[in-house]
Amino acid sequence: MLFKDEKVPPWRDQLTFRAFVVSMLLSILLTFIFMKLNLTIGVIPSMNGSAGLLGFFFVKTWTELLDKCGHLKQPFTRQENTIIQTCVVACSGIAFNGGFGNYLFAMSETIAEQSADESYSSNSVKNPHVGWMMGFLFAVSFVGLFSIIPLRKIMIIDYKLMYPSGTATAHLINSFHTPQGAVQAREQVLTLGKFFSLSFLWGFFEWFYTAGDACGFNSFPSLGLQAYQNNFYFDFSATYVGVGMICPYMVNISLLLGAIFSWGLLWPFIETKKGSWYDAKTSDNSMHGLQGYKVFIAIAIILGDGLYNFGKVIFRTIPAIYKQLKHREATLPLSESPPADEKSSLQSYDESVRAQVFVKDEIPTWASVGGYVVLAAVSTAVVPRIFHALKWYHILVIYLVAPVLAFCNAYGCGLTDWSLVTTYGKLAIFAIGSWAGAANGGVLAGLAACGVMMNIISTASDLMADFKTGYLTLASPRSMFISQCIGTAMGCIVSPSVFWLLYSAFPDLGKKTSPYQAPYAVVFRNMAVLGVDGFGSLPKHCLLLCYIFFAAAIIINTIKDLLPVKISKYIPIPMAMAIPFYIGGYFTIDMCVGSLILFVWEKKNKADARAFGPTVASGLICGDGLWTLPSSVFSLFGVRPPICMKFLSAATNAKVDRFLHTT
Amino acid sequence: MLFKDEKVPPWRDQLTFRAFVVSMLLSILLTFIFMKLNLTIGVIPSMNGSAGLLGFFFVKTWTELLDKCGHLKQPFTRQENTIIQTCVVACSGIAFNGGFGNYLFAMSETIAEQSADESYSSNSVKNPHVGWMMGFLFAVSFVGLFSIIPLRKIMIIDYKLMYPSGTATAHLINSFHTPQGAVQAREQVLTLGKFFSLSFLWGFFEWFYTAGDACGFNSFPSLGLQAYQNNFYFDFSATYVGVGMICPYMVNISLLLGAIFSWGLLWPFIETKKGSWYDAKTSDNSMHGLQGYKVFIAIAIILGDGLYNFGKVIFRTIPAIYKQLKHREATLPLSESPPADEKSSLQSYDESVRAQVFVKDEIPTWASVGGYVVLAAVSTAVVPRIFHALKWYHILVIYLVAPVLAFCNAYGCGLTDWSLVTTYGKLAIFAIGSWAGAANGGVLAGLAACGVMMNIISTASDLMADFKTGYLTLASPRSMFISQCIGTAMGCIVSPSVFWLLYSAFPDLGKKTSPYQAPYAVVFRNMAVLGVDGFGSLPKHCLLLCYIFFAAAIIINTIKDLLPVKISKYIPIPMAMAIPFYIGGYFTIDMCVGSLILFVWEKKNKADARAFGPTVASGLICGDGLWTLPSSVFSLFGVRPPICMKFLSAATNAKVDRFLHTT
Repeated sequence: MLFKDEKVPPWRDQLTFRAFVVSMLLSILLTFIFMKLNLTIGVIPSMNGSAGLLGFFFVKTWTELLDKCGHLKQPFTRQENTIIQTCVVACSGIAFNGGFGNYLFAMSETIAEQSADESYSSNSVKNPHVGWMMGFLFAVSFVGLFSIIPLRKIMIIDYKLMYPSGTATAHLINSFHTPQGAVQAREQVLTLGKFFSLSFLWGFFEWFYTAGDACGFNSFPSLGLQAYQNNFYFDFSATYVGVGMICPYMVNISLLLGAIFSWGLLWPFIETKKGSWYDAKTSDNSMHGLQGYKVFIAIAIILGDGLYNFGKVIFRTIPAIYKQLKHREATLPLSESPPADEKSSLQSYDESVRAQVFVKDEIPTWASVGGYVVLAAVSTAVVPRIFHALKWYHILVIYLVAPVLAFCNAYGCGLTDWSLVTTYGKLAIFAIGSWAGAANGGVLAGLAACGVMMNIISTASDLMADFKTGYLTLASPRSMFISQCIGTAMGCIVSPSVFWLLYSAFPDLGKKTSPYQAPYAVVFRNMAVLGVDGFGSLPKHCLLLCYIFFAAAIIINTIKDLLPVKISKYIPIPMAMAIPFYIGGYFTIDMCVGSLILFVWEKKNKADARAFGPTVASGLICGDGLWTLPSSVFSLFGVRPPICMKFLSAATNAKVDRFLHTT
Repeated sequence: MLFKDEKVPPWRDQLTFRAFVVSMLLSILLTFIFMKLNLTIGVIPSMNGSAGLLGFFFVKTWTELLDKCGHLKQPFTRQENTIIQTCVVACSGIAFNGGFGNYLFAMSETIAEQSADESYSSNSVKNPHVGWMMGFLFAVSFVGLFSIIPLRKIMIIDYKLMYPSGTATAHLINSFHTPQGAVQAREQVLTLGKFFSLSFLWGFFEWFYTAGDACGFNSFPSLGLQAYQNNFYFDFSATYVGVGMICPYMVNISLLLGAIFSWGLLWPFIETKKGSWYDAKTSDNSMHGLQGYKVFIAIAIILGDGLYNFGKVIFRTIPAIYKQLKHREATLPLSESPPADEKSSLQSYDESVRAQVFVKDEIPTWASVGGYVVLAAVSTAVVPRIFHALKWYHILVIYLVAPVLAFCNAYGCGLTDWSLVTTYGKLAIFAIGSWAGAANGGVLAGLAACGVMMNIISTASDLMADFKTGYLTLASPRSMFISQCIGTAMGCIVSPSVFWLLYSAFPDLGKKTSPYQAPYAVVFRNMAVLGVDGFGSLPKHCLLLCYIFFAAAIIINTIKDLLPVKISKYIPIPMAMAIPFYIGGYFTIDMCVGSLILFVWEKKNKADARAFGPTVASGLICGDGLWTLPSSVFSLFGVRPPICMKFLSAATNAKVDRFLHTT
């Protein structure tokens, strides 16, 4: 009822110039954030809500400015807001799907050097370059778009899947555009702005003290030097505190437990076996040493958890699809909407218009199937020219299988909000890698195949959530689709450029010593090597430990599913526990600080914490993320921070003081 | 009326054992705080309110505990609270009057070495030792007590002087002991506890990073390295932030302006004259170099401001005394109290009882005069045995003059809350120093005379404020006097012990490199040298600059007094401006941060800021102050902090990194 007087603008009017300018700006911001997360911890929280909020903020400011000047021709509608949202998600999604933190960067020499002592040859490495990365992304990113059009009809219209984060974003956008909502939106925007600036300024302040390695707040041994050497310290990162505020408590606690278990117990234990389990003379980075245990045990847990969830989703999906197909007639949208009882008037008005919008602006199935075939053919022809190890028949197989897997994942994601994109990617690594074989550059082939696979599957599930948002905000599917195309095109240019900027600005990117150590790139490369070469090169007992942890991941998941939620919600999540195994515990401390802040806030004022917690978190993440832009520009132009805040043990300090006095 | 049902306990019952135990604990805490302030910046804020609040907190907890166990024999009264308050003030006052931050420590070799290149001989230095310090304090501290008894009658009963801080403390104590007040008191105690713990923990946390010189948050170049080299940085000290919250805005702004003027303009300017105005080869600490300008210009301003205010107070006091004497009958307490109009019922009930209490427990004048004469005689005999340079006739003259000066100061303090103790001390330095002469250890004689003088005068004004508090809370003057005696005795033991602890724990105490550089000790010693030797040794143009700044201090004060308050309140205070001249700007930044916090708080919620601002400040000061105790114990037992947080320029850091790699 609230929206009854508002006309839904025709689909062409939903695509405004200002929307794409704002989308572009936001996408660049989010790409920086995602890239930073990719290259530091590899975990990316859902930023859908932030994108919606920021989009509203920018366009609202713009239209109010124009309105004051008397130049406003078209008011700001929720459809336009959704268009921005979907464009931004499409564009910034490529920052993750592009594999800059995993498969794509894993091809580089930097990562190959750190990998399991494979004697890599020229046909198994490919160093990043902005040219071929853009080409590859353009070749593979659009195929996914066409695979989702027929899926959209099934998932959203027929099956009425929830897509929790998509639905949440829609409610956010709807609430912004109702008169009551605008007040809270204004407050949220203010809060966002405040924490955004604080976080940005903090990043700026921190920067001054980072002249040199292990300088600055990022290396603050806040829990003592010994804890620091074992990667336990609070590193004053606004980003991770914000991420911690968004992630559920259990995820953060699992991360912390994982960090304590691995760095506090397991690694110290294995280190006592030095010389017996593994050669005492291996370098710190060698996969034949302790590093090998760290990487492969993490892989084992990730694979175990991934496979379990894959099985679970499939197990749940098939009966659900079967049921849906059986009762197809009964689930048509019109018959399910409440007839005239306008109890929830907002829902009801929208509900009744949705069918019309859907019918009016539908994209015909033949167009989407045709598009998919044509684009897949182009991609099949182009990609092998970039990666010589990947043959055309490998890609053809992927494109034949992908729609089915994309459907599975999109369905699972619609039910649970949990996307298994990287698991499917890992499957591609093992399948195509071993098919191509070590001699023919199987490592590179596997990684490239992972990229092709991930792009289709991830596009399908990410953008399906946006279609759900669009469906709930009455945005035209046609304008949504065009917006997604434009966003994808932007992403194919923006993401490689941002990565290239960082790659040029920080020459030690991907190395152990860098703050951007790209932990998952090493993991992915080692999986590819494992898939191609087998388990031969692992240190003693490593394989046994891998089996144990693989099994443990499955067992813990099974127990979690068998117990009632009341108990099982206190059981940690194996996947989350595995992340700090390789990277270390510092970011888990940050994230738990985020949890703690939220916890105390909820104790004091639950409503406030619910309404403003995610906003504060977004502000913290975005401000710190935006700082990555000037910081890398500074680095590129040789502007170095002036001061080093160094932490020395008392003994070393005495030595340094003596040295400084004599020189 | 609120207190009508409460019996005023007889004076013996006001002196409880628990009161003195609590006083002892509080005194030790405050002595640590005062000692720290003495030895770092030399400025001590009024802690009367804190002492009252903390006293209430401790005894209330104690009595409630006993009450729950059923062992409570005597309820906690406001009289007892006042007794604690006055005992604590008497005891901790000695931490300042003892001159550990100025005259007493100025006698040491450490300070003499930094002084104006006097070729000091053994008869002009006396190194601190706990034995003679206690003896000296016992000899001089009690004389002052007897000088105030006759003064009390005149100031409080006859003249009804305000003593703003004494009155404020009385209202605080009264409000604690009314039922409504107890609620706010409880809240205040909670707030105090919270910030006390925070501040203590922060001090503890900071400690870990202070292995070595210029390590830790105290050396954080928060405004950049160049600003740091010129002593501008925020040093994360909870104490000074708290002090800043208590001091009026104008004091803090004056401090900051002084710091900017001196370290930002004047010293850099004089440094450009290096080689022309002063020998380029002099060491940084030599009084013949830049250091000379810093110390003597500061002295000039302090003397100018002090003399101006001395003149002003005398100028105001004499007519006021004359008027009082003339209208003596009209100002008797009973005739001035409002007869039966119980508008302010609290005041009226108290007012009517005050006369009875006063009459009942008065100490006869003959006893006080007799006491003064006896103690002065003892002191005159004992003190020259400690300081051979100080002759018995010097002390005799002081004891003859002191009561008059004490009266002046107590009267001025009662009117304006501004005590000029150190100004009288400086007069003693000049007078006795030049009388004794350089050859006879005039420097030492002057400093010792300063001590004798300060002890009498300061006791008179500090404890008079407490008598005012006691008068308003109906505490018996007799029990107050006994409490002051006990407090003074405690102070004569506690203060030298605490100083001795710090002196043993930090061997570089008083040196330029130490965080405890005791800035005023150098200033006092240089004044003594100046008084004895004349201006011969000052660098070029230094004397001229001193005259200019001496005149400027007087002129600014005159302008301040001539202009209406509306404008004059924006004119900085010369005395405050002079403090950072010698020490540097870092603590002014801290104090302005304190001001800023209070300012923002007042903007947001004025009532809250008024009620809890001083409580938060006390918590910050006390927590950080208490940390001084364990930190010096650690230092004494050789427990060293494990980490050094070091700040290096990018270039130095590169050098250090290379050095660390090669070793």
